[in-house]
Amino acid sequence: MDKKPLIFLTNDDGVHAKGLRELIATLQPLGRLFVVAPQTAQSGMSHAITMTRPLFLQKLEETPERVIYSCNGTPVDCVKIAFDYLMLHGERPSLAISGINHGANSAINVLYSGTMGATIETSFYEIPAIGFSLLDHDENADFSTARLYVEQITRKVMAEPIENPLCLNVNIPNLPAAEIKGIMPCRQNRGYWREKFEKRTNPQGRDYYWLSGYFYNTEPEACDTDEWALKNGYVSIVPIQVDLTNYPQLDRIKQWKF
Amino acid sequence: MDKKPLIFLTNDDGVHAKGLRELIATLQPLGRLFVVAPQTAQSGMSHAITMTRPLFLQKLEETPERVIYSCNGTPVDCVKIAFDYLMLHGERPSLAISGINHGANSAINVLYSGTMGATIETSFYEIPAIGFSLLDHDENADFSTARLYVEQITRKVMAEPIENPLCLNVNIPNLPAAEIKGIMPCRQNRGYWREKFEKRTNPQGRDYYWLSGYFYNTEPEACDTDEWALKNGYVSIVPIQVDLTNYPQLDRIKQWKF
Repeated sequence: MDKKPLIFLTNDDGVHAKGLRELIATLQPLGRLFVVAPQTAQSGMSHAITMTRPLFLQKLEETPERVIYSCNGTPVDCVKIAFDYLMLHGERPSLAISGINHGANSAINVLYSGTMGATIETSFYEIPAIGFSLLDHDENADFSTARLYVEQITRKVMAEPIENPLCLNVNIPNLPAAEIKGIMPCRQNRGYWREKFEKRTNPQGRDYYWLSGYFYNTEPEACDTDEWALKNGYVSIVPIQVDLTNYPQLDRIKQWKF
Repeated sequence: MDKKPLIFLTNDDGVHAKGLRELIATLQPLGRLFVVAPQTAQSGMSHAITMTRPLFLQKLEETPERVIYSCNGTPVDCVKIAFDYLMLHGERPSLAISGINHGANSAINVLYSGTMGATIETSFYEIPAIGFSLLDHDENADFSTARLYVEQITRKVMAEPIENPLCLNVNIPNLPAAEIKGIMPCRQNRGYWREKFEKRTNPQGRDYYWLSGYFYNTEPEACDTDEWALKNGYVSIVPIQVDLTNYPQLDRIKQWKF
């Protein structure tokens, strides 16, 4: 009998988040799972790594079907310690999945997202990487629709001939399955966040500020973007790359005389 | 008499880092400065934002020439609270500079770097943004060569007709000025980090791990990259953009049948 493939899992909402438990339940039939997830919530941690403190690991579970560790670092730390320490001399996974994130990681959110930071980092290990996010921040969100698409898209990636690096940013509308119109491969929407800082005063009389903001979509009419797909009831898939070079600007700057 | 332009400054090594003091000294003759920098070192914080705790601000200095705040958040938090709170109803800066970073931010480091996270974030406010890094991690690094290029490149950006967004990742070799061969606009080198985790045991008997690694350059022969420029004695300038869409992969994925 063939051994089931080894799949690496992580997230940014922490090892105890419902989204990760739902991801484990969804993918367990497809493979053996190696999970290293942050000890605590790491939303908004982007591609951060921990440089000023050491990392601690805790093994929470080990069965033939799955191993689960927590780590006190960021999502990217979890990936690094998994691939370059825990799995270094053992079997390597054939696929890496992050999520299921509580909340959207579409458009420019890909830059701030710990889930996508981890997903991008796993793609550096020459295996397909997928980050899944559900458009619902609630800690008790209903992942039943998301699970259908997590399974379908994961099976697809396992079945297709893949050219690495393959790194997918998948976002799933918060809708009943019957209202989802399909899966739409698309590009990252252009836009940015503007923040509103809510000022409060602590009991010691010192002012403090809560970050909260809104996304400003600079191309609401474009119908080939992830924002459009999600607003129109589609699951969005944006393939991700990490060459940040702005080539048109590079051509302009080459004309500068220093 | 014309008022000197307002320039926003930040960094990721913290408000007390030598690199920021050198940046302030270099740019003070060119403008009035508005500085919001992290209270403590935030290296490796990437594009992280603080979502689970409130932010505190401290005004450290205020003169007609400059204002300096520290903030207990990440470099990107500093940018957000500067532009969307502190400067929201006042004069807006015409330029944003991050650095001078203690250590390289070339190649894939752009993804992990708090300095470049902040630089990218400032470029979302429709002003030119530059991140400067010196290839020396030492906290007492000699910034004298770096300062020459910080001034020259900043003056150039202030003089040229700019098409926003303009976001520059500038890295400066750790060499005497006479050994620098020039300034080279180039693209981001391809490569990735592999980590070595050093395992130690704390006095309570618990294992912990220090992250340390090496950069693996996947295209050492390419002579149009920032890594090549720096190895060959040039100051590298890579213009940065944030559309992470992998368009060739998008074309392939569109062929998948779901």
